Amino acid sequence: MVREMGLKARAAARVMATLPTEVRSGALGTLARLLEESRGAIEQANGRDVALARASGLDDALIDRLTLDGARIGALARDVRALERLPDPVGERFDRTVLPNGLRLCRQRVPLGVLAVIYESRPNVTIDVSALSIKTGNSVILRGGKETLHSNRALVALVREALGRKGLPQDAVQFVGDPDRARVLELLDLGDLVDVIIPRGGANLHRFCREHSRIPVITGGIGICHIYVDASADIERAIGVIHNAKTQRPSVCNALDTVLVHRSVAADALPRIVEALAPAGVVFRADPGAFECLAGHGAVRAAGPEDFDTEWMSLVLGLKVVGNIDEAIAHTNAHSMGHSDSILTGDPASAERWIREVDSAAVYVNASTRFTDGGQFGLGAEVAISTQRLHARGPMGLRELTTYKWVGEGDYHTRS
Amino acid sequence: MVREMGLKARAAARVMATLPTEVRSGALGTLARLLEESRGAIEQANGRDVALARASGLDDALIDRLTLDGARIGALARDVRALERLPDPVGERFDRTVLPNGLRLCRQRVPLGVLAVIYESRPNVTIDVSALSIKTGNSVILRGGKETLHSNRALVALVREALGRKGLPQDAVQFVGDPDRARVLELLDLGDLVDVIIPRGGANLHRFCREHSRIPVITGGIGICHIYVDASADIERAIGVIHNAKTQRPSVCNALDTVLVHRSVAADALPRIVEALAPAGVVFRADPGAFECLAGHGAVRAAGPEDFDTEWMSLVLGLKVVGNIDEAIAHTNAHSMGHSDSILTGDPASAERWIREVDSAAVYVNASTRFTDGGQFGLGAEVAISTQRLHARGPMGLRELTTYKWVGEGDYHTRS
Repeated sequence: MVREMGLKARAAARVMATLPTEVRSGALGTLARLLEESRGAIEQANGRDVALARASGLDDALIDRLTLDGARIGALARDVRALERLPDPVGERFDRTVLPNGLRLCRQRVPLGVLAVIYESRPNVTIDVSALSIKTGNSVILRGGKETLHSNRALVALVREALGRKGLPQDAVQFVGDPDRARVLELLDLGDLVDVIIPRGGANLHRFCREHSRIPVITGGIGICHIYVDASADIERAIGVIHNAKTQRPSVCNALDTVLVHRSVAADALPRIVEALAPAGVVFRADPGAFECLAGHGAVRAAGPEDFDTEWMSLVLGLKVVGNIDEAIAHTNAHSMGHSDSILTGDPASAERWIREVDSAAVYVNASTRFTDGGQFGLGAEVAISTQRLHARGPMGLRELTTYKWVGEGDYHTRS
Repeated sequence: MVREMGLKARAAARVMATLPTEVRSGALGTLARLLEESRGAIEQANGRDVALARASGLDDALIDRLTLDGARIGALARDVRALERLPDPVGERFDRTVLPNGLRLCRQRVPLGVLAVIYESRPNVTIDVSALSIKTGNSVILRGGKETLHSNRALVALVREALGRKGLPQDAVQFVGDPDRARVLELLDLGDLVDVIIPRGGANLHRFCREHSRIPVITGGIGICHIYVDASADIERAIGVIHNAKTQRPSVCNALDTVLVHRSVAADALPRIVEALAPAGVVFRADPGAFECLAGHGAVRAAGPEDFDTEWMSLVLGLKVVGNIDEAIAHTNAHSMGHSDSILTGDPASAERWIREVDSAAVYVNASTRFTDGGQFGLGAEVAISTQRLHARGPMGLRELTTYKWVGEGDYHTRS
């Protein structure tokens, strides 16, 4: 059955790739309207998921993640409309050149083909990914988590309705509704029909995909994020950035995990950081150097051996004292998952070294790590945040769902 | 042992990524000089490979492929110098923008990291790949074919000598000299140390790499290339292009495999194509429609069931009559490996449809398929020709050996 979906997706992708911008973007306008008109039906389907989640004892935070109320549905529709208005990367020609023999050459952006997106809980992913995929002329096979099965089914039905109304192939968006894990394995095995696997979830899901597929897998969405407070940093303002990066939304991948502090400012900065963040509920894991500066603070514990390799996803913050920027960069490159890392400094030379030497998808100078996000970066939305090196790094928006072909136009040119 | 090479490659890559352009490019100048000064030693090492190849009964064409004489070594040195002069993509900043909150954002090009290139026979690949890798600040682990072991060892020694003289880490270029196939498996298993596997060889090598590695593999270098002669084509000039695409170098991946001819011109065009190419030694496999137009031609046989799915690599050419451009596009998309396909036409609407609908790395209008090549495209050289969709498509030169990081620069910016 999943193989059949793959065949249909491939056929739909061939059609999608030849449709003009207006048609693909137009379907997004229809989808936004359908979302608004169908609030009641979506809330009803979502209500079943929420009831099942409560019955199975999921905690409030998780239930909040999967809940869709009228306001959230309205926001989804607005996001789809924003995407509708963004420029279409497909068809764009770049690197135009004329070879010495007169052959005109360029690269032309084309859809990636068939995407398979495997995700957990949040139902808004269903709409975000469908809309990005339609806008870029791809086909997508969605496999959502079982906690949002009813919501996802209702949302995908609307997406397909929008495609149908605008004359686009409905199989450009398909949903694997059978919750059996065997279906995921079948999806991972569609080597000739799926061009890229995009997992959205924890490290286990990413590993599972990589181990069971020969299709390229986009790894990402996992970050052990660092902020390094350099000797020249403005400590007061640094505390504001650290507070934001840690507490604004602690459960996401670009939230702060570890603060590195230059030895020369540690005795001053560390107690102030702890005093500013502890009232927000933050607790701390300090390396010996940091622990020394923080004697008597109730929220501070000595860090254990694995604490600097843990993505906290909660109000825990690692603290470590470093002797210099070399040590800060080395620690970051050794422990970061290559997601988002920031330096707070007044010294342009330190800033330049951080940018050049920290090997992460997003490197910042004097900014919160929380900015790494397709919406924040102006990409409209994101299908994932890649921490791998090939194809795309960081937030993947419209352009990252395309590839290119070379186009050569001549006058019966032959190679000499 | 291979794992140790991986660790050294990763350490060298960290250093390479921080070196300025002049240093990386400078090493290429030194390498070019060393190649010229060491012609005698290279020829001597290559002589051993050639003698062993003769003794093991390799045919003349293969022996020619692996032979390095003074002229070929000179050409290698010239290619390295040309690469030295090309602009360096590393460090380039693009997509600069200032977010509404004032955060300055851009993407900055950085090296890919550690490459593993697994290739067969031709020793010039050793120099091409090493030079591309050094220029772009990557590390590379090379695994060449056993037929050129002595030549490759001599060439890699010169590359490492050049790196050392210029103060670059010698482990940025390493060579797996042990011909045991188990070493390839070890290389494919270095998931944490190698960023991309680039196989250069036949379909079996590509499949082997994909099946035995969780590292991203660049698939490519295999093409079943088509030329479609549209109803409006200039037949005389079309024959020139077909002749070039088929006979100029029949053993390479961008050589022509199948000619599709529009029914309305088939009776005129097909006999003329056969008469023009047969004297060059070309033999033909014709589908029923084409066979009908070619009665009595000694060089023409009826095509068998797999002939249109065969990459000929020799002077064999498939011929097929199609009813219209839809059929030509459908046949091409079904049988091409997504490498290079060309339309010969006088009709702009047909040209546009071919460009949009043929799903290959390189699509041409009125040009030979033979142009798909890093040198021809002005990329300097190529590390491979990708026929996959992710990351890079078609010839992979300097830029395709890089990725990017996002750089955000602010004034203690926080996300609201």
